[in-house]
Amino acid sequence: MRAHNFGAGPCTLPLEVLEEAQAEFVDFGGTGMSVIELSHRSPEYESVHDEALRLTREVAEAPDDFEVLFIQGGATLQFAMVPMNLLKTGQRGAYIVSGSWGKRAHEDASPHGAVYSAWDGRADGYTRMPASNEVVVEPDTRYLHVTTNETIGGIRLVELPDVQVPLVADMSSDYLARPIEWDRYDLIYGGVQKNLAPAGMAVVFARKSALTGARTDLGSFLRYGWHADNRSLGHTPPMFPIYLMGKVLKLIKSKGGVRGLESEAAAKAGLLYSVIDRSNAYYRSPVEPAHRSHMNIVFRLPDEDAEARFLKEAEAVHFVGLKGHRSVGGCRASIYAALPMSSVERLAEFMTSFQGTNA
Amino acid sequence: MRAHNFGAGPCTLPLEVLEEAQAEFVDFGGTGMSVIELSHRSPEYESVHDEALRLTREVAEAPDDFEVLFIQGGATLQFAMVPMNLLKTGQRGAYIVSGSWGKRAHEDASPHGAVYSAWDGRADGYTRMPASNEVVVEPDTRYLHVTTNETIGGIRLVELPDVQVPLVADMSSDYLARPIEWDRYDLIYGGVQKNLAPAGMAVVFARKSALTGARTDLGSFLRYGWHADNRSLGHTPPMFPIYLMGKVLKLIKSKGGVRGLESEAAAKAGLLYSVIDRSNAYYRSPVEPAHRSHMNIVFRLPDEDAEARFLKEAEAVHFVGLKGHRSVGGCRASIYAALPMSSVERLAEFMTSFQGTNA
Repeated sequence: MRAHNFGAGPCTLPLEVLEEAQAEFVDFGGTGMSVIELSHRSPEYESVHDEALRLTREVAEAPDDFEVLFIQGGATLQFAMVPMNLLKTGQRGAYIVSGSWGKRAHEDASPHGAVYSAWDGRADGYTRMPASNEVVVEPDTRYLHVTTNETIGGIRLVELPDVQVPLVADMSSDYLARPIEWDRYDLIYGGVQKNLAPAGMAVVFARKSALTGARTDLGSFLRYGWHADNRSLGHTPPMFPIYLMGKVLKLIKSKGGVRGLESEAAAKAGLLYSVIDRSNAYYRSPVEPAHRSHMNIVFRLPDEDAEARFLKEAEAVHFVGLKGHRSVGGCRASIYAALPMSSVERLAEFMTSFQGTNA
Repeated sequence: MRAHNFGAGPCTLPLEVLEEAQAEFVDFGGTGMSVIELSHRSPEYESVHDEALRLTREVAEAPDDFEVLFIQGGATLQFAMVPMNLLKTGQRGAYIVSGSWGKRAHEDASPHGAVYSAWDGRADGYTRMPASNEVVVEPDTRYLHVTTNETIGGIRLVELPDVQVPLVADMSSDYLARPIEWDRYDLIYGGVQKNLAPAGMAVVFARKSALTGARTDLGSFLRYGWHADNRSLGHTPPMFPIYLMGKVLKLIKSKGGVRGLESEAAAKAGLLYSVIDRSNAYYRSPVEPAHRSHMNIVFRLPDEDAEARFLKEAEAVHFVGLKGHRSVGGCRASIYAALPMSSVERLAEFMTSFQGTNA
C-alpha cells in the first residue's frame, strides 16, 4: 500500500514517474544498459540531459539571460558558492535570517566573504517574514539573500523586499511551486529533493551578466561559469536525479507548469489551514497567517501528549513524516508538488476525526 | 540483449544489483515508498546509509584512524577541497602530473593553495608513471598528490613513490580494485561511477589526525570535518548512489573484496594485453608495459581507417564504449569491476577474429 508521504524532503515523487523509471531501469530505450550505466558523453544520455535543461527553463519560465545549471552538493554547497563567486573585495552580502535555513546560508557564507544580517526574525521565534521597511541594506552590498520558504518554521516570503540591490534566493522548499520574478534576481538556487527529483543536486539559475563579473580564482567545480560553459557536463553529472527530474518536469508541464503547481499548492495548503482554523483552537498554527507556508504546514495540538497520540495514530494509517522538526517539536505536514490532493484530503479527515475523539 | 559495456565511466553495474533495485524501486522494504522518497532521517534510510559506510570501510580494509565520507561533487570537487582543507599558510602541495587527471587535480588546486608539479610525464606523452628518484619534493610540502590510474592514458601507478611526505590519491578509476597502503596516505578520494555506483558522489577516506589539523575557515560542505562529524548526513546525502553502492559492495565482499577484485582485474587485463602482444604488432599498446592499467586498456590499430572499421564492427555486436578518448584517439577497453569476464573473452575473440579478416 502506497504511503501518504508528508515528509519534509526527500519526499513523494509522482507514482507514474517511479513506475516508468522502474520499467526501463535495467534496459534504457533498448540500449541493453541502465540509464545509470550510460556514458555521460553518449548521445542517449546527452538527450536526457538536454531535455532536462530545456524543461527546467521552460517550466520555470526562465528568460534567456539566465543560465540553468545542475550542480551536485544541494543547497548546502550553494551557501558557500554564492559568496565565493559573487563577492569581490569591498563588496558585501546581506542576508535575511528568517529561520534555520536563512541562518545556515548566512553562517556558511561568512568564511567566504563579508556578509551581514539585514534582518533577523529571532525575536518573533521565526514565525514571520520581514516587511520591506524592516530590511536594512548597507552600502557596498552586492546582493540580498532571501529564503523563499522556511521548511522548519513553516513560513513563506509572500512579497519580495523592496530593495535596490539584486536578490539571491534559496528556493529549495518551494522550488517551481510559484512564479519567479526574474527581474529581481541575480541568482536562484535550490536542492531538487522536495518538489522535483531524488536528492543529489541543486538547480541554479544564474544571470549571465552576474557571471561575467564573477570571481574566477576558484577550482572548476566551484565556478558557476565552468558549469555554464560546459552545459553542466564538465564532469560526470548526477545522471539519475537529472533523468528523473526530466520526467517529473514533463508531468508538471502537462499540469500547467509553475502556475498549475502554485494553485494546487494553495488549494492543498488551504484545506489543511481551514481544518486548523475551524478547530476552535484544538489545532494551532504558530505562524503569522499572512506568512503561512504553502509547502510545510506546521501545527500544534493542545499538549505534547495529544501530539504524541496524534503522530502514533497517523503512523498506523500510513501517514508518514508528520512529526515536526526536532528543533521545534509539534507536527508538520509537508505537502510538496507530487503529494496528491487525495492524501491531503485524507489527512484533513483524519485531523477532524482525531479532534472529535480526543478534544 | 545486455550490452558489453567497455565505457570509461559511468559504466556497467552488476546485473543482479540492477534487478534487485528494480524490483524494490517503487516499494522499498514494504514502506509503501521508493528508497528515493524516504526521509534521510528515517530509520529505514539510516540503516541503508550506515550499512554502506560500514561496507565501504570493510571492503577497503580501512583502519579505524580513517574517516569514511560520502561527498557530492565527484573527484572534481575534491581537486579543490584537498588543498582548501589541508594547506595552511606556508605549506605546499606537490602533484605528480601523470596524465589528464593529474593535470586537472594540479590546476584546480592552484587557486586554493601553493602547489607545484613534482613530476610531469608530458615529455613521454604520459605513457608511464615516474620512478621514485624522478619525483622532486620541495621543502614545506604538506602532501604529494598521485593519481593511481589515468583513464585516458591507460597507465597505473604500480609502486608508490618513496617520499617523506604523506600521500593524497585520486583513485577514481581503480577504486577498491587494489589493496590500499594505508600507512602512506593522509587522504584518498575517488568518484564512485567507475567500479562502485551510479555517478553522484566521491568516497573520501581521511586520516583523522589530518582532519584535526585541517583548516576550519570554510563553509560546512567544504570542510571534511563537517562531513565526518555528521556521518555524511549533515545535509541530504545522495541517497540513491549510496543505496546502490551498498548492494555493489556486498557483492564485492562476497567475491573476496579488494583482493578478489585485484586478481580479477589482473586476469581480465592480462587477457586483452596478451591478444595485443601476440598480434605481431597489429594491435599496439602505447604504454610502457610495466605501467599498463588494469582498468583501461588503450590500444591502436595499424591506421585510423582500421580503427574506424574496428569500432564500427564492434558496435554492431553490442560492444559499447571502445572509442579512445577524443584527446588521444585510438581504442580503449575499460574493464571495470562489474564487467563480466565473459564480456572480456568476447572482446578478445572479436579482436583476434577482426585481425584475421583485416590484417
